[in-house]
Parts: sequence; structure tokens; C-alpha cells
Amino acid sequence: KALPRSAMELRCQCIGTHSKFIHPKFIHNVNLIPSGPHCKNVEVIATLTDGREVCLEPTAPWVKLVIKAILDK
Amino acid sequence: KALPRSAMELRCQCIGTHSKFIHPKFIHNVNLIPSGPHCKNVEVIATLTDGREVCLEPTAPWVKLVIKAILDK
Repeated sequence: KALPRSAMELRCQCIGTHSKFIHPKFIHNVNLIPSGPHCKNVEVIATLTDGREVCLEPTAPWVKLVIKAILDK
Repeated sequence: KALPRSAMELRCQCIGTHSKFIHPKFIHNVNLIPSGPHCKNVEVIATLTDGREVCLEPTAPWVKLVIKAILDK
């Protein structure tokens, strides 16, 4: 659900968010994009170990936990 | 301090970490890379609004706060 993007893209990257839990072991990296003039939404884009990119909901408790788990490991 | 990288780079990306506080308004995005076979360190790479990439220390309290601030905004 992530549109193609570059680091300096000037619009929202996500057209929806993936709602189901994704185990951190399947997450290759997570990109956090603050809201700003380019997009009113905070965007959280996970690249999975199989190469897929999925947008996650920044307010979802499991997303916050996964981010915390990555930082604390 | 971030080396050039692709999303699927197979080694550590950071050769050091930036220790001084960076205000979230200067942060364009933050990429969280869990530790794994490619790199024993958790890596946090911020792209700044001027295009520079800096590696941040995942255990630094201010880094955790900045990430929380981005998610909560």
C-alpha cells in the first residue's frame, strides 16, 4: 500500500494502512515520516524481509510496540 | 556519518552516531533498521530537511523522545 517514493517526495506516500500485526522478525526496516507541508499525516512505512513495503498506522498500539521493540533490542 | 545505502544493504550502515540533540523540525524522516545477520547494531538513520543523513544512537533518551514525538504528532 506504499506508493513509489524517494526520500524527498513532496506528497503523502501512503494510500492506506495495513491493520494486521506484523512480527518484527519480518520487518527489514521502518521509515518514519513526520507530518509536514508535503502531507498532513504522520507516515510509517515498513519494508518487509521479502521486499514489500507496507504503510502502518502510527496510532496503532502494536505499531508503537514494534518500534519500541526494534529500538530496545 | 551514514554510508550510502539501499533498502536491502547487507552490512551496517552507520560508522558512528551523532550525539547532539536535533530538533524534530529539522528531521525529514527517520529510518529504523533492526539488528540482524547484516549488522549486529540497531541503526537509526535520520534524513534532515537539508538532505543530510545522520546516524542516531538508538539508546539515547532524546532519540527515543524524538521518535515518540513524530509518532504522537
